[in-house]
Amino acid sequence: MSEPKRVTAGMLVIGDEILSGRTKDQNIGTVADFCSDLNIELCEARIVADEPEDIVSALNTLRERYTYVFTTGGIGPTHDDITADAVANAFGVELKVDDRAIKAMQDRFVDYPMNEGRLRMARIPVGGELIANVVSGAPGIHIENVFVMAGVPKVMQCMLEAIAPTLETGIEVFSRSCDSQAGESSLSEALTELQNVYPTVKIGSYPQMGTDKYMTQIVLRSSDKALLEEATVKVQAIIDAATQNKLKI
Amino acid sequence: MSEPKRVTAGMLVIGDEILSGRTKDQNIGTVADFCSDLNIELCEARIVADEPEDIVSALNTLRERYTYVFTTGGIGPTHDDITADAVANAFGVELKVDDRAIKAMQDRFVDYPMNEGRLRMARIPVGGELIANVVSGAPGIHIENVFVMAGVPKVMQCMLEAIAPTLETGIEVFSRSCDSQAGESSLSEALTELQNVYPTVKIGSYPQMGTDKYMTQIVLRSSDKALLEEATVKVQAIIDAATQNKLKI
Repeated sequence: MSEPKRVTAGMLVIGDEILSGRTKDQNIGTVADFCSDLNIELCEARIVADEPEDIVSALNTLRERYTYVFTTGGIGPTHDDITADAVANAFGVELKVDDRAIKAMQDRFVDYPMNEGRLRMARIPVGGELIANVVSGAPGIHIENVFVMAGVPKVMQCMLEAIAPTLETGIEVFSRSCDSQAGESSLSEALTELQNVYPTVKIGSYPQMGTDKYMTQIVLRSSDKALLEEATVKVQAIIDAATQNKLKI
Repeated sequence: MSEPKRVTAGMLVIGDEILSGRTKDQNIGTVADFCSDLNIELCEARIVADEPEDIVSALNTLRERYTYVFTTGGIGPTHDDITADAVANAFGVELKVDDRAIKAMQDRFVDYPMNEGRLRMARIPVGGELIANVVSGAPGIHIENVFVMAGVPKVMQCMLEAIAPTLETGIEVFSRSCDSQAGESSLSEALTELQNVYPTVKIGSYPQMGTDKYMTQIVLRSSDKALLEEATVKVQAIIDAATQNKLKI
């Protein structure tokens, strides 16, 4: 059995509508959960406008840096859908109407004339493979380590399902969480010391704002289960001590 | 009266919890709306982990590139809150406990002993100004063109309110939208031609997925009101023609 290794990912959200506030992105959260489930470490996400140079530049940076890149948005039939063009440009390959894509769209819908808009959605960078779209037919694109998906959440989600079995998965990371009625400030000194004792257990502290008091959740993550359990017991002891001190906030 | 100019912004979201999927970001949408209201063009957003080098590198890129940079996350009291350190590092200045910050926190709450965690939240890069936090006291940081805000949405929002009057606003952009019962593919050829005729009116096309049919919304944006109205009339004519053609999807 080969040693499990770190598998990383970057995400690129493409679309003026996200940056103008017109559409609130839901895809970053979905991809983040998807990566966590597969033990893929999502290291970075970027949102760029429908500007060719911005897309090419971000895509080239991310695909150099991470095992996988997931993009969403800009693969529809209209003039403002320029992701396929940018991907072809980033890889230095031609963008061509692909018979497999036409077939995928015509298999999905009866009586589907290939007008200009639909032909636009059938353009695939040379060397790319299709990502199945069971929701609306027009495929996504897989080229090297880049997965180009739709921006519409339901379509993006079905594309994620399609690619999941093809991805490498990373080292399994376990997590524990402890809730505290004491605020972050009361815990921080002891948590800092504990983090230094357990450098391979990542300890995160998250305030939960309520209406009349603060509650804190401490989340511990590690690929070493024994160390994780040990550190979790100590976090609980820190919380108990702080709570007994009756420190507010 | 001086000529209105383009005012741009970049956003930097800092936090492992967003990239792990544990927390779903709400702040990008809020900042996007905030920028739109002030005619500030949000050009790019990035999400990075709680890693010093990642934060410094992204911050330095964004602050060179845009009029303003808005950051959220990582300014709490615990060891994983490293944004203030990274900002000081990016600007090459010291990070010091600031009496103004201690005063702001003690003014907000009675009986507020300055333990280690609270002192951590009072550290401000030298040369930075405070951003008021009426929700929970611990201030944000304004240094040069960078605004460092909390990750908790309610706190972030009160900080945005605090900085709004200090920001330059850009050229007013007007928008119109037209709903279509015809799908994007049926409109795309005519919209592409129209976009070429009106290069200063940005025409965006957004599919709205329903249960049994597709609906499309066309959004037009321009700072030239007369051209915007002219182009909107033509978009409506394109929609009417496509709808009469009874093209589905």
